[in-house]
Amino acid sequence: MSKQPQIGVIGMAVMGKNLALNIESRGYTVGIYNRTAAKTEEVMADHKEKNVVPSYNIKEFVESLEKPRRIVMMVKAGFGTDAVIDELLPLLDKGDVLIDGGNTFFEDTVRRNEKLDKSGINFIGMGVSGGELGALQGPSMMPGGQKEAYDLVAPILKEMSAKAEDGEPCVTYIGPNGAGHYVKMVHNGIEYGDMQLIAESYNILRNVLGLSVDEIAEIFAEWNKGELSSYLMEITADILTRKDDLGSDKPIVDLILDAAGNKGTGKWSSQNALELGVSQSLITEAVYARYISAFKDERIEASKVLKGPKFDGASLNKEEVIESVRKALYFSKIMSYAQGFEQMRIAAEHYDWPLNFGEIAKIWREGCIIRAQFLQKITDAYDEDESINNLLMNHYFADIANDYQDSVRDVLSIAIKAGVPSPAFSSAVSYFDSYRSEVVPANLIQAQRDYFGAHTYQRTDREGTYHYPWYDEQ
Amino acid sequence: MSKQPQIGVIGMAVMGKNLALNIESRGYTVGIYNRTAAKTEEVMADHKEKNVVPSYNIKEFVESLEKPRRIVMMVKAGFGTDAVIDELLPLLDKGDVLIDGGNTFFEDTVRRNEKLDKSGINFIGMGVSGGELGALQGPSMMPGGQKEAYDLVAPILKEMSAKAEDGEPCVTYIGPNGAGHYVKMVHNGIEYGDMQLIAESYNILRNVLGLSVDEIAEIFAEWNKGELSSYLMEITADILTRKDDLGSDKPIVDLILDAAGNKGTGKWSSQNALELGVSQSLITEAVYARYISAFKDERIEASKVLKGPKFDGASLNKEEVIESVRKALYFSKIMSYAQGFEQMRIAAEHYDWPLNFGEIAKIWREGCIIRAQFLQKITDAYDEDESINNLLMNHYFADIANDYQDSVRDVLSIAIKAGVPSPAFSSAVSYFDSYRSEVVPANLIQAQRDYFGAHTYQRTDREGTYHYPWYDEQ
Repeated sequence: MSKQPQIGVIGMAVMGKNLALNIESRGYTVGIYNRTAAKTEEVMADHKEKNVVPSYNIKEFVESLEKPRRIVMMVKAGFGTDAVIDELLPLLDKGDVLIDGGNTFFEDTVRRNEKLDKSGINFIGMGVSGGELGALQGPSMMPGGQKEAYDLVAPILKEMSAKAEDGEPCVTYIGPNGAGHYVKMVHNGIEYGDMQLIAESYNILRNVLGLSVDEIAEIFAEWNKGELSSYLMEITADILTRKDDLGSDKPIVDLILDAAGNKGTGKWSSQNALELGVSQSLITEAVYARYISAFKDERIEASKVLKGPKFDGASLNKEEVIESVRKALYFSKIMSYAQGFEQMRIAAEHYDWPLNFGEIAKIWREGCIIRAQFLQKITDAYDEDESINNLLMNHYFADIANDYQDSVRDVLSIAIKAGVPSPAFSSAVSYFDSYRSEVVPANLIQAQRDYFGAHTYQRTDREGTYHYPWYDEQ
Repeated sequence: MSKQPQIGVIGMAVMGKNLALNIESRGYTVGIYNRTAAKTEEVMADHKEKNVVPSYNIKEFVESLEKPRRIVMMVKAGFGTDAVIDELLPLLDKGDVLIDGGNTFFEDTVRRNEKLDKSGINFIGMGVSGGELGALQGPSMMPGGQKEAYDLVAPILKEMSAKAEDGEPCVTYIGPNGAGHYVKMVHNGIEYGDMQLIAESYNILRNVLGLSVDEIAEIFAEWNKGELSSYLMEITADILTRKDDLGSDKPIVDLILDAAGNKGTGKWSSQNALELGVSQSLITEAVYARYISAFKDERIEASKVLKGPKFDGASLNKEEVIESVRKALYFSKIMSYAQGFEQMRIAAEHYDWPLNFGEIAKIWREGCIIRAQFLQKITDAYDEDESINNLLMNHYFADIANDYQDSVRDVLSIAIKAGVPSPAFSSAVSYFDSYRSEVVPANLIQAQRDYFGAHTYQRTDREGTYHYPWYDEQ
């Protein structure tokens, strides 16, 4: 207990506490501080034997740490983060490393990095994924900021991170200033997409095929053994086996209100795609699906007025449809990741970040919510050719897309005819069909824009910019 | 020519010039000013006989106007607008009315309105739709700002605006500060949706049914006589009849590059829907479709690797499919407007604007790009019950949706099986099926969120917030 802390953690809510305990478990002494003393006292009471050194004021906390200081902030994103930084700034020395591990909007991180850099303080914005358990046992981490600052904390980060099957730590230097929080934002967007795709698969199995929750649990557990193997698939299979914890014998999922919340990262991810001019249609549909779900009262009213289609699924071959849903899910997952990685490619150019896409996929293999074997395929694709514009240009993903497209088209047209909403599956197919179209009907849109707004257009047969004499001629 | 101008226009690019000439044509004397004198001289040379008074410096311009001054700015949105305001501010008197008729982001208008209001200057942010011709002959205008300032300019605005069939002017007071530019932004989003839906209809007729451009021109001209009657349908039918103006005998649409541009308003509209937590999936898919179209080189490469489905349309009944596409288009248009108006409803609450949705639909009936008979139906719906949450809760729209749903489901499953991208049609059906679903699978998403992040959930059978013992139990 008397050893000087090699690192400090500010914020003793569950994520901060678990990260501190994780670091301590790797053989470090950790200084901890929380604005209200009670939380710190609670941690100390529960972990008397640990190498954790509490401080009850921030100055004392800063002074207690080894230099150059390494401080991880796990506080409420937004004003809270700025308030803590303002308190810390006069207490820090040049060369200290401050890490924001919160769920911060990347533009805030860019701004803070620039501001602190002027005082010689290193500032790392670090995405941390894995939930409470991941924080304790080993999360996937996405740090962005000064490279030399990353090097100062890299040994600790690598030890505390999750490890992939091949032993590699799930942390890597992402890039300057806001790059880490940016990549975490896209990760979360992808997470929204994965969750929505699983929910749509469940909905089709349940409401088109009429399968029971137990049957779907078994199907998902089976799928989790193959190419769809992932943490989210695993926990969904588990969720579907669970019964009401308050006494009834119903599946818990049937008692949970179908109004999804969100913490804003899916929204940010979509807003940024719109800003950068790149399609992230699947994730955006997933965000909108959550929004519509939250309008529960309106949906109940609407369900009384708006009728579904007449649909008779009796002639469907259940086994075939189940397998088609599996393929549709994998196909759509590929489209979602293709969009997410294309967005990161455009972002790398736009913000001037040297993002390494293969490395990013690598550190998502374990620890984080979207962890899956599938990510190794993405790393492999970039290992093979790091210059590809889109994952669909890699032969593995192209082959799956080509082979599975009939299944997803079948499933989708069944779901559409049955009236079972499938926004994410739909956007996956639309994206695939748009992206592989040499010609899309945007020529007509350009003609319309030129007609009513003289916006001009380019031609396919010669260089230059043209305006058609729409009015002169008549 | 010696009369004192009752109103002034700053910015003599085509929109500003045309608005000035429009006002003059109603019997007013108009002062004009442009940063570079050449543009002003050009206007004067072309319109010697008009009651237009030029000024060649801004102070002289301001001093020339009747008080309280009424000044319309038609300058490049963004920094340009702020620069002109900074120049004007010391020259204006309390009670003067400054109108920004540019394509301004509504949050900028909120900020400018607040800033100028402190100096006693009225500031109106006014959306102007109708393109160059509309500006000259009568646009639809959406002014937002101080009500008393609106009253000072209302007579001129009403005279210069387009008139609906029943003679009503296509301008009304929208609400305080940024409300006018906000509503214009949603208008433009809806415009993106309408254009994309027409483009998708065209694409299906052309590439599923194999119709010629001439045949589609005739079909669209026919549709324009019925419930789909609209300016965009009319000009699209016209566009499809036009041949290459540079000599070949090909349809011009076949020579226009299929890479759509955008001026950002569709993007703003989608970003704002994401911010407010309301689905605008159709417009967003339309924005993304333009983005994907702009990746022309990538699409060409992808078309070599990614294969389309095998599809044989020989057995399709062409007449039936054409009529189904027509119904699909009207169905989807209704979904798009339902989303746009729901977004405005949420915005009215969020920004505290007393928006009158029936009036908004009314002023869109003529003058603007989305003008259509259809908008009268929206006005009627709000006249009948101004408290509806969503247009789909009105019997006219509900009946169409219920009746046409089979057609849109048929068309969409054909397009999906044929590999013809239909993102906007897809999102229309997904939205309808989600919105009319008493239960959506967001319960599963809430379970997942509670599992990995302890985000808690609500239950359907009792009040309160719950967390399931996912780990304790095992």
